[in-house]
Amino acid sequence: MYVLRLGHRPTRDKRVTTHVALVARAFGANGFVLEGVCDDSVYNSLTKASNMWGGAIHYECGVNGHEYVKSWKANGGEVVHLTMYGMPVDDAIGKLSSSPKPKLIVVGSQKVEAFYYMNADYNIAIGWQPHSEVAALALFLDRLFKGRELYTYYTDAKASIIPTRRGKRVEWRGQRK
Amino acid sequence: MYVLRLGHRPTRDKRVTTHVALVARAFGANGFVLEGVCDDSVYNSLTKASNMWGGAIHYECGVNGHEYVKSWKANGGEVVHLTMYGMPVDDAIGKLSSSPKPKLIVVGSQKVEAFYYMNADYNIAIGWQPHSEVAALALFLDRLFKGRELYTYYTDAKASIIPTRRGKRVEWRGQRK
Repeated sequence: MYVLRLGHRPTRDKRVTTHVALVARAFGANGFVLEGVCDDSVYNSLTKASNMWGGAIHYECGVNGHEYVKSWKANGGEVVHLTMYGMPVDDAIGKLSSSPKPKLIVVGSQKVEAFYYMNADYNIAIGWQPHSEVAALALFLDRLFKGRELYTYYTDAKASIIPTRRGKRVEWRGQRK
Repeated sequence: MYVLRLGHRPTRDKRVTTHVALVARAFGANGFVLEGVCDDSVYNSLTKASNMWGGAIHYECGVNGHEYVKSWKANGGEVVHLTMYGMPVDDAIGKLSSSPKPKLIVVGSQKVEAFYYMNADYNIAIGWQPHSEVAALALFLDRLFKGRELYTYYTDAKASIIPTRRGKRVEWRGQRK
């Protein structure tokens, strides 16, 4: 399952897009794809997280969004566009969870072209209030993975957190940098 | 239930903090509080959302975070700090949901002072991977409200979304602006 981020504007969206990418990694996506542009700061944050906490995910950037979606579908995958105008996530999630098709989750920024509404297999709303593509992606993946994604530990992690009531406990494997 | 956002840096965090504020509103918080500084752009985005979609929430800014937390507890409330180093959300949520105490949800940015770890009634992790305070807040509120928050409609809304499979359908009440 990949996440395709549309309409990233490097100056303005740097941190929000980084959050989208980190949520994709942390909540179990296999790939993060930036449409239209590349942005080293997003890539670097993602790589830094994976180097420390494990779980590297595939990264692509500068792709043509229309072509990417068409090609995903042509290769047997299905496309889920997250939008506040869409259908309830709770209604679609059963069908989506049980479908074996590889999923491309499309998240926009301010304005999303009609193309994505028309070509997505599902337009799905995480509530019908304006909030955040970061929150929308997190909630969608949480529903898709039924909350199990919160318990992911990566075996290639240099560091893992030991849950604690107060403060911070980290277990280091190998050399601490 | 209020959300306290720590460590906002107006230039760098403008959009991420706006997303935190919009998630607070959309997922059922009664108030959003910005620690240390004020930022008109955050306030304006929140007000704009409420004017259109209803559901105005209380807003404060420039508060002293330590005093705010102490005062919240002194007034009988409880404080939940969201941190990737904390205890599993799923273990704490039952107790939290059934407690009638008003809740202050504290979300940080890069670095959070030890004070908050020490003075929170709960330090709670939304997974133990680095991701996003936007995602953490959304997931926490989703667990707290058991998914019902996604079905919030505000009776004072000027516009409401009619869920649809493709495209956008909005119902306007009164004069469209």
